Amino acid sequence: MTLITPDPLVLINYKTYLEATGKKSVELSRTIEKIGRDIGVNVAVAPQFCDIVHVAAQVEIPIFAQHVDPVLPGASTGHVLADSVKAAGASGTLLNHSEKLLRLADLERAVSLVRELGLTSVVCAGNAHSASAVAMLHPDMVAIEPPELIGSGRAVSKEQPEVVTQSVKEIRRVNSDVKILCGAGVSTGDDVYASLRLGAQGVLVASALVKSTHPDTVITDFCNAVRRFEEDKG
Amino acid sequence: MTLITPDPLVLINYKTYLEATGKKSVELSRTIEKIGRDIGVNVAVAPQFCDIVHVAAQVEIPIFAQHVDPVLPGASTGHVLADSVKAAGASGTLLNHSEKLLRLADLERAVSLVRELGLTSVVCAGNAHSASAVAMLHPDMVAIEPPELIGSGRAVSKEQPEVVTQSVKEIRRVNSDVKILCGAGVSTGDDVYASLRLGAQGVLVASALVKSTHPDTVITDFCNAVRRFEEDKG
Amino acid sequence: MTLITPDPLVLINYKTYLEATGKKSVELSRTIEKIGRDIGVNVAVAPQFCDIVHVAAQVEIPIFAQHVDPVLPGASTGHVLADSVKAAGASGTLLNHSEKLLRLADLERAVSLVRELGLTSVVCAGNAHSASAVAMLHPDMVAIEPPELIGSGRAVSKEQPEVVTQSVKEIRRVNSDVKILCGAGVSTGDDVYASLRLGAQGVLVASALVKSTHPDTVITDFCNAVRRFEEDKG
Amino acid sequence: MTLITPDPLVLINYKTYLEATGKKSVELSRTIEKIGRDIGVNVAVAPQFCDIVHVAAQVEIPIFAQHVDPVLPGASTGHVLADSVKAAGASGTLLNHSEKLLRLADLERAVSLVRELGLTSVVCAGNAHSASAVAMLHPDMVAIEPPELIGSGRAVSKEQPEVVTQSVKEIRRVNSDVKILCGAGVSTGDDVYASLRLGAQGVLVASALVKSTHPDTVITDFCNAVRRFEEDKG
Repeated sequence: MTLITPDPLVLINYKTYLEATGKKSVELSRTIEKIGRDIGVNVAVAPQFCDIVHVAAQVEIPIFAQHVDPVLPGASTGHVLADSVKAAGASGTLLNHSEKLLRLADLERAVSLVRELGLTSVVCAGNAHSASAVAMLHPDMVAIEPPELIGSGRAVSKEQPEVVTQSVKEIRRVNSDVKILCGAGVSTGDDVYASLRLGAQGVLVASALVKSTHPDTVITDFCNAVRRFEEDKG
Repeated sequence: MTLITPDPLVLINYKTYLEATGKKSVELSRTIEKIGRDIGVNVAVAPQFCDIVHVAAQVEIPIFAQHVDPVLPGASTGHVLADSVKAAGASGTLLNHSEKLLRLADLERAVSLVRELGLTSVVCAGNAHSASAVAMLHPDMVAIEPPELIGSGRAVSKEQPEVVTQSVKEIRRVNSDVKILCGAGVSTGDDVYASLRLGAQGVLVASALVKSTHPDTVITDFCNAVRRFEEDKG
Repeated sequence: MTLITPDPLVLINYKTYLEATGKKSVELSRTIEKIGRDIGVNVAVAPQFCDIVHVAAQVEIPIFAQHVDPVLPGASTGHVLADSVKAAGASGTLLNHSEKLLRLADLERAVSLVRELGLTSVVCAGNAHSASAVAMLHPDMVAIEPPELIGSGRAVSKEQPEVVTQSVKEIRRVNSDVKILCGAGVSTGDDVYASLRLGAQGVLVASALVKSTHPDTVITDFCNAVRRFEEDKG
Repeated sequence: MTLITPDPLVLINYKTYLEATGKKSVELSRTIEKIGRDIGVNVAVAPQFCDIVHVAAQVEIPIFAQHVDPVLPGASTGHVLADSVKAAGASGTLLNHSEKLLRLADLERAVSLVRELGLTSVVCAGNAHSASAVAMLHPDMVAIEPPELIGSGRAVSKEQPEVVTQSVKEIRRVNSDVKILCGAGVSTGDDVYASLRLGAQGVLVASALVKSTHPDTVITDFCNAVRRFEEDKG
């Protein structure tokens, strides 16, 4: 288990893509780790539950589950126990992704439960209102992902920059600590750069990288954009 | 991956018990495999998603997932893909456990999807009506588990034998092939014996074994009961 | 409350269309009742929950709720109690519509609960396997509606006649009493006629009638087709 | 439709109790209206969907639905359309009651949709964290109801006063306008008085009144407590 370190973060969600299932999840994670290390950018991956053990055995970058259920150990057949993903080697989890939405009460419970286990929580939200509501639950990170842009190839930082700036503003009004990730449609280094310039501390990406025929090129592009932003900023 | 072989079957559901999470899931599976082999009874286990890989690496008995979602590969963050549990080493899955109920349309889809992947489906049902409805979906096995008896220590084969006989009767009227398992409250070898005598081809058990301080004693008791039944029958 | 009488039945689902909300639900129901009576065909309507009382006060044709929850009287805020729709004047209810799918265990409970109150149950299913599973729960009617054709204007009786014939065959193998309705895309009198010829005892229709600028023409067309079928058959 | 007027408010949730189903919902509403008017306290009621029309025809106090679904007019069979409860005579709705929890994204959408129709939203939350998250969605009212106290007869204002004061504090930090109601276990006038003293602008009550053999006595007790609080304050 590796603790999440300094900003910015490039977090890659493997979803249930066959391109990142089973052994392929391990290969992809190795590629991402290597390039992140070479360029000097924080990267992390979110493989499927069954693949966490494999990936954790092969890379040292942080591993996130894609979801955990708001249940304690016990009689919860078929549920994803936070203790279980932790034992498998995850250091955190996504929660409330638009493809796995949670009831507010369950989300509150899951964030709290994940915190108690020392896991990092990344809670997704589709707009500024939801994002600021999420921020009141004090997760470690909030990821802003307008559902209509997810997988569209049209980046929220380009198509709806006001959603990002408005979310950042509303979140910061009530929570100064939470990291803000920008997701949905992030496809190029320019999208990554734009996200950081709009006030995000990282990006959450999926299809543009996982479904690419050259994921190494894509992650290189993303990481270079992060470095460029850091240098321009400094 | 191991194919399910002859009757009867003792299938152990690990639920989200800490006693069978992480490394403990591997130890428990080894114990169960050893005793099943020694006594000559078919045993199988259903660990949590994250533990399938570990367990599959250490035992040769069939491994079941506790659930899969009715989704195809793609953009289904946080869902459990059938291809993923298969790649991890599972040869089948539970579906519609009373702690993870499925909508009928999703259950139909999941059974069909699991079949296409060559995985074995064990669909749970809480009463005779539901069990016979489930049988029309042509899963490999139906497990009868009245929800009010699950984890109660009071076995359905003893407390509500008519539920078992009625279910067996209604299922057999429309489906002559499906294996029938008996679950809910199965705690002793006598419960196992009674289940088989009522017409079941196996049992689905959980807490009585997983939460026992001596799981080896419990599984021995269960397996001996199966042998006794086989001998009495023969 | 009016009891469902002889076949065939033309059942109109108002969904949440504004064209059939509030006062408009009453006007539409009157039109449907008048034309059904004039042509001599059994018609019934399924308005929204809030409109049942209004509609029941103005027409004598059977009224169906669009759904009820599998709950008993008590602490179930926001749920739809079967006793409540009955008190409002409904004589039955749709269940498991593809826009309001139920978990199998809840569906089994709802059918049973609805039966105990003397209400008529119409359970929807999207394909032959699900339809025959539903038939094992012994509802009063099964409505076959492939989800992909609902609202498409392409009738299941024309586009996928084999789904209807296969469903009728599988249902009849296990249940000789249940009425079978044919839905999804039924738009014209010809679709209605075809449905009956494929073995259905009625149709479940929605948008083609409710969203029409001339619902009176549409229901006339449907009812005439039923008469034509009856005469051709006789 | 009546607009919600000055504080404090006594809002009675009829749940799915038979004691407040059908004609009984009308009688009970009349009793509540009469006593509220006599004592000079704002009262409102939340009957079941099917009963809204009846109740609205007989009383002038505000009527709330117990829930609406986050759907627009259209193809949403079995869902509760906000336009429909408004047409029936409701002036607002409960949302996210612990017996009908909503996913955060759906809750955000429902609050927004309800606002556009000019309906009053009362969003329930089970603890201080959830309550402050809810406040970020800018509903008209937040109702604090620890689930474990609902229906218990043990009032949150007495058993867990810190939940109320903490919730009021966290909500007020981010939202100065929203009305705060206190619910869960409110059974006596003293509970009502205590709720107002802890900073609530009203109470949300159910079983203590609806299931009472003398609801008139109970509502009198509640309203007198409100008056007493107002006088003590003044």
